Amino acid sequence: MFLPDKLLDQKIRGFLDDDLGLGDITTLITVPKGIVVQGEVIAKEAGVVAGLDEASALLRGFSFESEALVSEGSEVEEDTGIMRIIGEARTLLAIERSLLNLLARMCGIATKTRRIIKEVGEAGYGTRIASTRKVAPGLLYLDKKAVMIGGGDTHRLHLDDLVLIKDNHLAIIEDVREAVKRTQQAVSFSKKIEVEVSSEEEAIEAVEAGADIVMLDNFSPQRIRSTISLLQKKGLRDQVLIEASGGITEENVVKYAATGTDIISLGELTDSVRALDLSLEVTKATRK
Amino acid sequence: MFLPDKLLDQKIRGFLDDDLGLGDITTLITVPKGIVVQGEVIAKEAGVVAGLDEASALLRGFSFESEALVSEGSEVEEDTGIMRIIGEARTLLAIERSLLNLLARMCGIATKTRRIIKEVGEAGYGTRIASTRKVAPGLLYLDKKAVMIGGGDTHRLHLDDLVLIKDNHLAIIEDVREAVKRTQQAVSFSKKIEVEVSSEEEAIEAVEAGADIVMLDNFSPQRIRSTISLLQKKGLRDQVLIEASGGITEENVVKYAATGTDIISLGELTDSVRALDLSLEVTKATRK
Amino acid sequence: MFLPDKLLDQKIRGFLDDDLGLGDITTLITVPKGIVVQGEVIAKEAGVVAGLDEASALLRGFSFESEALVSEGSEVEEDTGIMRIIGEARTLLAIERSLLNLLARMCGIATKTRRIIKEVGEAGYGTRIASTRKVAPGLLYLDKKAVMIGGGDTHRLHLDDLVLIKDNHLAIIEDVREAVKRTQQAVSFSKKIEVEVSSEEEAIEAVEAGADIVMLDNFSPQRIRSTISLLQKKGLRDQVLIEASGGITEENVVKYAATGTDIISLGELTDSVRALDLSLEVTKATRK
Amino acid sequence: MFLPDKLLDQKIRGFLDDDLGLGDITTLITVPKGIVVQGEVIAKEAGVVAGLDEASALLRGFSFESEALVSEGSEVEEDTGIMRIIGEARTLLAIERSLLNLLARMCGIATKTRRIIKEVGEAGYGTRIASTRKVAPGLLYLDKKAVMIGGGDTHRLHLDDLVLIKDNHLAIIEDVREAVKRTQQAVSFSKKIEVEVSSEEEAIEAVEAGADIVMLDNFSPQRIRSTISLLQKKGLRDQVLIEASGGITEENVVKYAATGTDIISLGELTDSVRALDLSLEVTKATRK
Amino acid sequence: MFLPDKLLDQKIRGFLDDDLGLGDITTLITVPKGIVVQGEVIAKEAGVVAGLDEASALLRGFSFESEALVSEGSEVEEDTGIMRIIGEARTLLAIERSLLNLLARMCGIATKTRRIIKEVGEAGYGTRIASTRKVAPGLLYLDKKAVMIGGGDTHRLHLDDLVLIKDNHLAIIEDVREAVKRTQQAVSFSKKIEVEVSSEEEAIEAVEAGADIVMLDNFSPQRIRSTISLLQKKGLRDQVLIEASGGITEENVVKYAATGTDIISLGELTDSVRALDLSLEVTKATRK
Amino acid sequence: MFLPDKLLDQKIRGFLDDDLGLGDITTLITVPKGIVVQGEVIAKEAGVVAGLDEASALLRGFSFESEALVSEGSEVEEDTGIMRIIGEARTLLAIERSLLNLLARMCGIATKTRRIIKEVGEAGYGTRIASTRKVAPGLLYLDKKAVMIGGGDTHRLHLDDLVLIKDNHLAIIEDVREAVKRTQQAVSFSKKIEVEVSSEEEAIEAVEAGADIVMLDNFSPQRIRSTISLLQKKGLRDQVLIEASGGITEENVVKYAATGTDIISLGELTDSVRALDLSLEVTKATRK
Repeated sequence: MFLPDKLLDQKIRGFLDDDLGLGDITTLITVPKGIVVQGEVIAKEAGVVAGLDEASALLRGFSFESEALVSEGSEVEEDTGIMRIIGEARTLLAIERSLLNLLARMCGIATKTRRIIKEVGEAGYGTRIASTRKVAPGLLYLDKKAVMIGGGDTHRLHLDDLVLIKDNHLAIIEDVREAVKRTQQAVSFSKKIEVEVSSEEEAIEAVEAGADIVMLDNFSPQRIRSTISLLQKKGLRDQVLIEASGGITEENVVKYAATGTDIISLGELTDSVRALDLSLEVTKATRK
Repeated sequence: MFLPDKLLDQKIRGFLDDDLGLGDITTLITVPKGIVVQGEVIAKEAGVVAGLDEASALLRGFSFESEALVSEGSEVEEDTGIMRIIGEARTLLAIERSLLNLLARMCGIATKTRRIIKEVGEAGYGTRIASTRKVAPGLLYLDKKAVMIGGGDTHRLHLDDLVLIKDNHLAIIEDVREAVKRTQQAVSFSKKIEVEVSSEEEAIEAVEAGADIVMLDNFSPQRIRSTISLLQKKGLRDQVLIEASGGITEENVVKYAATGTDIISLGELTDSVRALDLSLEVTKATRK
Repeated sequence: MFLPDKLLDQKIRGFLDDDLGLGDITTLITVPKGIVVQGEVIAKEAGVVAGLDEASALLRGFSFESEALVSEGSEVEEDTGIMRIIGEARTLLAIERSLLNLLARMCGIATKTRRIIKEVGEAGYGTRIASTRKVAPGLLYLDKKAVMIGGGDTHRLHLDDLVLIKDNHLAIIEDVREAVKRTQQAVSFSKKIEVEVSSEEEAIEAVEAGADIVMLDNFSPQRIRSTISLLQKKGLRDQVLIEASGGITEENVVKYAATGTDIISLGELTDSVRALDLSLEVTKATRK
Repeated sequence: MFLPDKLLDQKIRGFLDDDLGLGDITTLITVPKGIVVQGEVIAKEAGVVAGLDEASALLRGFSFESEALVSEGSEVEEDTGIMRIIGEARTLLAIERSLLNLLARMCGIATKTRRIIKEVGEAGYGTRIASTRKVAPGLLYLDKKAVMIGGGDTHRLHLDDLVLIKDNHLAIIEDVREAVKRTQQAVSFSKKIEVEVSSEEEAIEAVEAGADIVMLDNFSPQRIRSTISLLQKKGLRDQVLIEASGGITEENVVKYAATGTDIISLGELTDSVRALDLSLEVTKATRK
Repeated sequence: MFLPDKLLDQKIRGFLDDDLGLGDITTLITVPKGIVVQGEVIAKEAGVVAGLDEASALLRGFSFESEALVSEGSEVEEDTGIMRIIGEARTLLAIERSLLNLLARMCGIATKTRRIIKEVGEAGYGTRIASTRKVAPGLLYLDKKAVMIGGGDTHRLHLDDLVLIKDNHLAIIEDVREAVKRTQQAVSFSKKIEVEVSSEEEAIEAVEAGADIVMLDNFSPQRIRSTISLLQKKGLRDQVLIEASGGITEENVVKYAATGTDIISLGELTDSVRALDLSLEVTKATRK
Repeated sequence: MFLPDKLLDQKIRGFLDDDLGLGDITTLITVPKGIVVQGEVIAKEAGVVAGLDEASALLRGFSFESEALVSEGSEVEEDTGIMRIIGEARTLLAIERSLLNLLARMCGIATKTRRIIKEVGEAGYGTRIASTRKVAPGLLYLDKKAVMIGGGDTHRLHLDDLVLIKDNHLAIIEDVREAVKRTQQAVSFSKKIEVEVSSEEEAIEAVEAGADIVMLDNFSPQRIRSTISLLQKKGLRDQVLIEASGGITEENVVKYAATGTDIISLGELTDSVRALDLSLEVTKATRK
């Protein structure tokens, strides 16, 4: 998920249009032209830092110099400066809120992702913690990138990069085996095939048909365990990855990790985000 | 905040681009052309419904018929159908997630806003509950609209529709009185002028200079009370609106409402959203 | 109305697309690569200079150095240089016309606005001279900015920054009082409310209901006077701003100013513009 | 200059974005959903109608039915209805101003163009009256289309559709003959070649070198006459078109026409426009 | 690669902008408004039909009715009608060339792809024939879709849907084993990992490290054979897919297929396309 | 066809969006930040170089330094370096393919154009070799520019820069003479008028009516000769340009040139392109 700076900037700059309307009238009136300020983005609470590349692409696009004070993905304490910015005062005041909104959301996602991974890790499991496509509208890139920085798995990035046969598809094509076979012929060799199943039988069927990954949808931990054990008995466990999904939250994630599933995916990583509390402090102002 | 359907659709449709990439490969393979389906968006938990206009503009743009099953802003119980959709199966499966992400975020915001307003109302206060500019990047319109549907106050919509002189402006222009005077001359008669203050003295100064609204930034409830009482003594209370802001959350909002402030603004209405749990159930499929 | 340079440039650069088509064929053939020129934008007639910020944002976007020779809003005599430009010859010739069109329109608007304000001022009145939404299609920002530089009032910038209840709204909601009341409840505290009225009675009603501004639409000077005097008698004059609008032109504006209205708005400030006569003179050319 | 409806609509729809901001708050509050209105665009003064195709493309894009009441280019009297519109009330009120701004400018341009052509015609001359590239920024298409509807000549549409060697090009390449020769070799056979000249000698040189059109820049009527007569003497008059340009206005155009020039171009056709006075009258409103 | 009609139309419609400029002047002058025509797209030579969905999305966007006369991917003889179109004459003439350009390129790609697959199949091999990222600038979607319709494998669609470690990456990270290991940890479980190798040793290393696919870059058929046989000896053949790439053309493809490679990729499928010869014949015209 | 760098970059940068998706995952994992590389674009086969300006505009947009090693339009041997690039490694790897695709297509078009022109020239004819509007969708600018660099004639650039009355227009307006007359009155003096004819009679008619150019559509060489000779007999040959079009390919072009036609146009110049074989070789990598 590396994007050149100019494309990042382009992706992000659009966010400012609505906010600015025809321009910042307060700044126009109260701040003279030609003042250079230095500012610092401060994390007002502890968390994982994410979005520094995106923020600096945005800032460079507006001719600011900026310097990250910590590295992407690092864990910081309350009241830590994470980025220093130097540039034109009017412009900085006009884009301040957009800049902070971007960083605060990305840090919030990375912080939650990291915390869940740690909880699972401290309970002794190496399960992959993955996000879903439940992102904020239009924020697919930022949300997935933040999950990755937090240490999570981005999962599918678009509808074109993994075949994922879900209940609604099976409602139409009906036969799991048939669906997998047809897909193997039709899709590029470069793609994996995943099937969302709702019963142990479907899980077996999907693996036998050649699915690379099986998603156990809304299975209880108990049912996940018994499905995995059935796969083991049939000698199929090693040729498939198991993903548990549906109804899993920070509260119960360790119970799911304990089942032996390879991957756990949680919608709330990206659809129920608490922004990290950030502020921009202007530390010096000089006339140009 | 009324936007014609075509403009709404345009605003929203961009959200799908990243998600679809070069197109939905699963649906292409597993779902034949020419199937018409009926689907229902179901609220899997209780909440306030928001985003029906935006969703229906999006759906109409893709030639779906859709019907709202409840009205915008209504409170629904768990497992209530909120929208019925009829149209082409492939297209519905391809846009399903984007549609739900849009609705789930807007419902989440409206639900939280309404809950806070009720708590304040049940405690006997009529204080306006307002959002801030702490929205998700690019989602200014959706987030503000959802606050409004929840019953909240949208506050400033762009940097051009209210003069709001903040600490960073005062750091440069320094004198509150001077800032307000200069603004009154320079800005259109159609705008209000608000000043963010950090002390009682500044509050008095701002009101005396003619500010329409004063924002008490990070004041404790006790300090808000004493500021208001000072304004009353000076006979200035009636010519100004008081907004309390900073550090206010769902947990402590009632204490702030009790101070007599006119408006309370909370960043978390839009920057710390929990999506409402929604799903799309395909209820009927027929060949065209 | 402060916009960062990059956003300004973005707003403006689109104007060139149509003009250039697949590119300037004359320049390609007649001007070799690698020539650096210096040029000067000359005002061929007296007027008020506006658009220097927009022009320089555009020029910087094309890697030109530029220097304003006078300040934004200054009044210049015939044959005054207003901007100096240094850069690549081919590019300068290709964008020359777009640059001049931008400046000539903005200067034209500022010049007319300033002239009217002076006429009103010299007649002894301090009435605010405001523009309307009658701008050239797509040029809302440029036209309003030029009015502001000319010393005029920008009035409403979008349909979301002031409630303005007009005849067509009243045709549907009918009751002025009801319309104002409903608006006060529904709209953010950050907005003012204006009502366009067509009779003295409606004016009184609107003010009593709490309108912040009343627009007297197509009132004769005589009728404006009597309405104001009626408001004074009822002790309502001080709680409302009066805007006169409709049928007012440079010819009759002083008569309207004499009525005591607070604001006069004129569509012709932006819909009947005479461009200021500008030209670009290339003063030096050197091989790189 | 025929553009399919959808492309027209696309070109025009962007004009609304700034104007609407996050949406029309007045209409949202005062006009209920589900009201269908009929409206009529009325010319409040006499003029030439232009822009009906553009207006109806825009309206169709917003699902309005519309009907032109007069034909494109027709001359109407004061208080004539020119277009009837039926559709959703909220949407009509939200786009009303943008629609009128578009039509008012195009009618204004067409009216002025027609008037000048008539004046020239009534004086007994058949000279072509052409526009220049001095259009409002971004409005190349609308402004040129309106000139055409008024009966004027659109002249060059982009920098790629006619070679026009101007003073700034000659300042670099210096030799007129050389410039024309080089162009004939380098440019497509599908283009004409025009040269802007500043003396009789240059005019002769340009024609002898093979220019299809010669633009006499800032020549007095007397000098135009003598140049033409010189060309006649040399037997060159018939192989070239003569365009007079620079300093020509509605006041002096007939004098220039009298010189025998083929074409007269005037910047003021598009850079000094007076909008035609139009209004939208809502004539009927019914609940859906 | 299923995209809803509206998104398809959006993707394609941009192609017309440059072509139309300010509009079709010939059609404006010679074709009256209000004529309805019926046209047929005719394949003037035999080939595989591709692009019907894209063409019909485009046509629907311009309000045409259209009907495919053959199915996507079918093989047609010379002079076969492939699509029938009914609609407004001016619009059809204005978009004719863009429509044909789209179809002619897609048919050209599908035809070549199908021919190569047949040649390989007739020689008795089931090798997958894949395209590369060597597409025409901006035509990734159309070119890949056409390959798929021709029966080819689309290969990687974006830089985010398959890890493909190439020579330039190995030039920096150097160790194949290390590169694969690091990737397995860092990348989502939903992606496959492919390594481009330049020697038999690297091939073995890559497979042992766990690569899902190995690309033998610029290997002669002989060297491919020996590499495969080495992998077989080591018992590694079954856990990896082999892709042959580099220097393979329609002339020599069968020799490569004979090596036992799983996949053959050819740049020329999309970077050296011969358009299929198509024309639009207007078969009926009636006044509306 | 000169476009300023920033507009070129803008035109081209869009090509990367689809290709990159959410970003290059391989480069992210395998290439560390902060590496500076030098690369060289190598022509792996002989050909004509085209696209250097476009490539360098793109590269500058991504902050690369680049230097053309040969001049635009020069003929190079196999294994010649044509461009040197210095900049950030990750970004270069991410845009490499898009850069090469752009150059390879443009070089391919220029190479073919030049080869045909030489064949015609070596046979002793000076006929202009022109392209048509049969370009790849969306690539009008690049394709036409490459033709020009190859020495070909770009022909019409948009539907607005030359009147070209074709069979489908004549099917509606019917009378050639009438069509030409009507056009002369309606169209700007700045445009030429061309008529596509299908018989000798129509050719005569078109020239007599005043067409500037006549296109002999699908005429055999023999028929072209006799048409030209008929025009000569009637003394009309000198007042018109003759264009031969339809069914002309590299194989038979010399036979057409031998007829004495002024211009030959070939669709295959742009619709049947073989990309020149180019590669990017990274020659040095250093830590920043």
